[in-house]
Order: sequence, then structure tokens, then C-alpha cells
Amino acid sequence: MFPAVSWRLLGLAAVAVSLSLELVYRFVRRRRPVREVLFFPAPLVCTEPLLSPGLSCSCPLPHDKDSALYQLVRRLLGARRSLELCIFTLSSPPLARAVLLLHSQGVRVRVITDSDYMAAAGSQIGSLRKAGVAVRHNQSSGFMHHKFAVVDNTIVITGSMNWTMQAIQTNQENLLITDDGVCVRAYREQFERLWKEYDPTTYCFFPEEDKKQT
Amino acid sequence: MFPAVSWRLLGLAAVAVSLSLELVYRFVRRRRPVREVLFFPAPLVCTEPLLSPGLSCSCPLPHDKDSALYQLVRRLLGARRSLELCIFTLSSPPLARAVLLLHSQGVRVRVITDSDYMAAAGSQIGSLRKAGVAVRHNQSSGFMHHKFAVVDNTIVITGSMNWTMQAIQTNQENLLITDDGVCVRAYREQFERLWKEYDPTTYCFFPEEDKKQT
Repeated sequence: MFPAVSWRLLGLAAVAVSLSLELVYRFVRRRRPVREVLFFPAPLVCTEPLLSPGLSCSCPLPHDKDSALYQLVRRLLGARRSLELCIFTLSSPPLARAVLLLHSQGVRVRVITDSDYMAAAGSQIGSLRKAGVAVRHNQSSGFMHHKFAVVDNTIVITGSMNWTMQAIQTNQENLLITDDGVCVRAYREQFERLWKEYDPTTYCFFPEEDKKQT
Repeated sequence: MFPAVSWRLLGLAAVAVSLSLELVYRFVRRRRPVREVLFFPAPLVCTEPLLSPGLSCSCPLPHDKDSALYQLVRRLLGARRSLELCIFTLSSPPLARAVLLLHSQGVRVRVITDSDYMAAAGSQIGSLRKAGVAVRHNQSSGFMHHKFAVVDNTIVITGSMNWTMQAIQTNQENLLITDDGVCVRAYREQFERLWKEYDPTTYCFFPEEDKKQT
């Protein structure tokens, strides 16, 4: 039998060891840079294990966790605090469901999209707005053609791919995923700049008329 | 006066110092990672100082070297050995001129583009082909929607932006530029994969007929 003081020392040592392990784990996790590239077209796969966790799925779709679509949904659902999405067109049901799921979990979701394409057939922007997701859009003749997402202010996902089923399943597309600080900061600042610019309280519905008056 | 042997030593020391400085410079240059993000729309600026070096330009366009367009042309013209371009649509005259200039300087230029959009009004793909640049395109129903370039196998430029004047001057667009090894390798391999897939000697003009025969 150990004396009482030894038990206390043993307890303290155990706490110290577990704290150290936690610190080492966090350090290693923090230091491992995120550098991934996803290429499409990717076959449609079942994303239910991610979108409906805990429920078993017996759908006929392949359950391929290496698929680019699965990897993209997984990355998005990694958000714990915030998701900023700047997307030309969003009509992919699994990607829209991922955004809705994050919103329902209390993650701060903000979406910027294109004023023309948000009303296109199959667009999921209406569903997002209906669920209470904050959405803003451009008000200019040019397209809001970005296709990037910022996850938790730490990861940026950018590339050529619109969030449509055609892009995912048929087109040649790429998405680069990185946690490089310089890149993440640039995209975050660009999002904030556009978010402010597209504030609906400052919309100018008749720009030419307004110019004449000033 | 130094004796002859001292002069020799002094000369050797000077050579050693200059060699060391060159090595240090190369090391520092190699170690500084390239991480840039360009955002558009960008005003049209004069790129003649890059495209016609040595000639003075008195055009009325702004001579803004910080402009995103200027920065993009500068990055492309940094190529010394190779440029792989995988671009949905190319109609921007300054960007096409940059590609032609590299080709005329002996840089190995290869272009992959989209079969539908290569024939669109204003496309510069014909000019590239006429100048002898190797161009291949997809032969599938989906779009070849990539917009990336690999410079000298060391830098990748990717994002939402097609190489059109509308994209440059009017749309909200982004381009991420990086020399991260993991990313560059991924895009390089994807280019080689598509280059092989789109080899015109293996085109299948009547896929359905061919399927029936096999």
C-alpha cells in the first residue's frame, strides 16, 4: 500500500501527463498544415453518414469516403463557429443540406451569392433563407462569380467549382483547401468587404436616377 | 604593397564571399513561400512594360503595377521553362499575349481548354494554335471548367476567374497563387492526366457507335 502522500503525487503526475499529452496533441494538430486539392467530376456518393449522423443508411449509392464530394461535405461540417460562403450558384442538395445542418447546430452561417443565379432553377438559396440563414447578393451588372468558403476563420476552400450537381458529377473542376494564414486572411477580408458592400439597407435601386439627383 | 601570395588569397576570399552571398540569396529566395491572392474586378491597366519590355508606352491607360491584372501577367511571364494552362475560356488579349510571348521565347506552353467555349466569340485559342502553341480540349458533355495555370512546375495559379475581359473588369473573382509543393504536384498531375486523356489521336467521335461494336 502507498502512503496518502504518494497517492496524491501519483494523481498529480497523472494530471500533468494527460495535460502534457493534450498540449502535444494540440501542437501537432495545429502544426500539421492543411493542404488538399479535390478534383471533380466525382461520382455521386451517399453523404448520409455525415448529414444524418447516428442513422444507418441502406441507400443504393456507393458509400465511398474517399470521394471528393464526401471530402468536401466533411470539411464543411468541420465548422464549429462560423461558415462564410461566397458562391456564384448553389443548387447541390447535399451541399445545401450541409449548410442547413451547420445553421441548425448554431454555427454562424453567412452566404453571399449572385443576384441572377440565386433565382435559377434548382437554386437552394430560397431554402437557406427560409431556414433563417443570412444571405446577401450583388447588385451590379457583373457576376458575383466567387466560389469560396471560409470555415471557422481558419480554412479556405476555393477553386473553379460551383455548388451544382452538374459541376460535381459532370464537369472537370478543382477545389484547393488550405489553412495558410495569408490566404485565409485575404479571403476573410474579401468576404467582409463584400458583406458590407451588399448590405441591403444601402441598396441603390435606381443608380442612374440617384446619380442625376446628386 | 601586398606580396603576390596575399593578392591571390584576397582574390580567393572575394570569390568565396561572392559565392556564399549567391548561395545565401538563392536559399532565402527559395525558402520564402509564395502565397498571394488576387481579387477582381480590376481596372484595365497598361501591361506593355511587361509584354513589350524596353519599349516606352504613352497609352492613356493607368500604369498601375499593383493592379491584379498586372500582377497576374507578371506571374505568368515569370515562366522560364514551362507553362501548363487549363482554362475554360480565354479571350483576354493581354493574357493571350503573355502566353504567346512565352511561347516565342521558347517556354514549353501547353493549353487545355473547353471544346464549346474555345469557339466562342473573342476566343484567343485560334491565335494560340496559329502561333504553334499545343492546345487540347475535352470531348465530353461536361465542361472543362478548370481555371488554373502551373508555372515552371513550381507555382500554381487557381481560382474562379476565367481569362476574359468581363471576368477581369466586371466580375467578382479570385485567384490564389502558391508554390506549396503538395498543391503544385496535385495540379501538375491533374494536367498530365487530362493532357493524356484529351490526346486527339485517341478521340472517339461516335462513342455510342463504338460501344455497340465492342
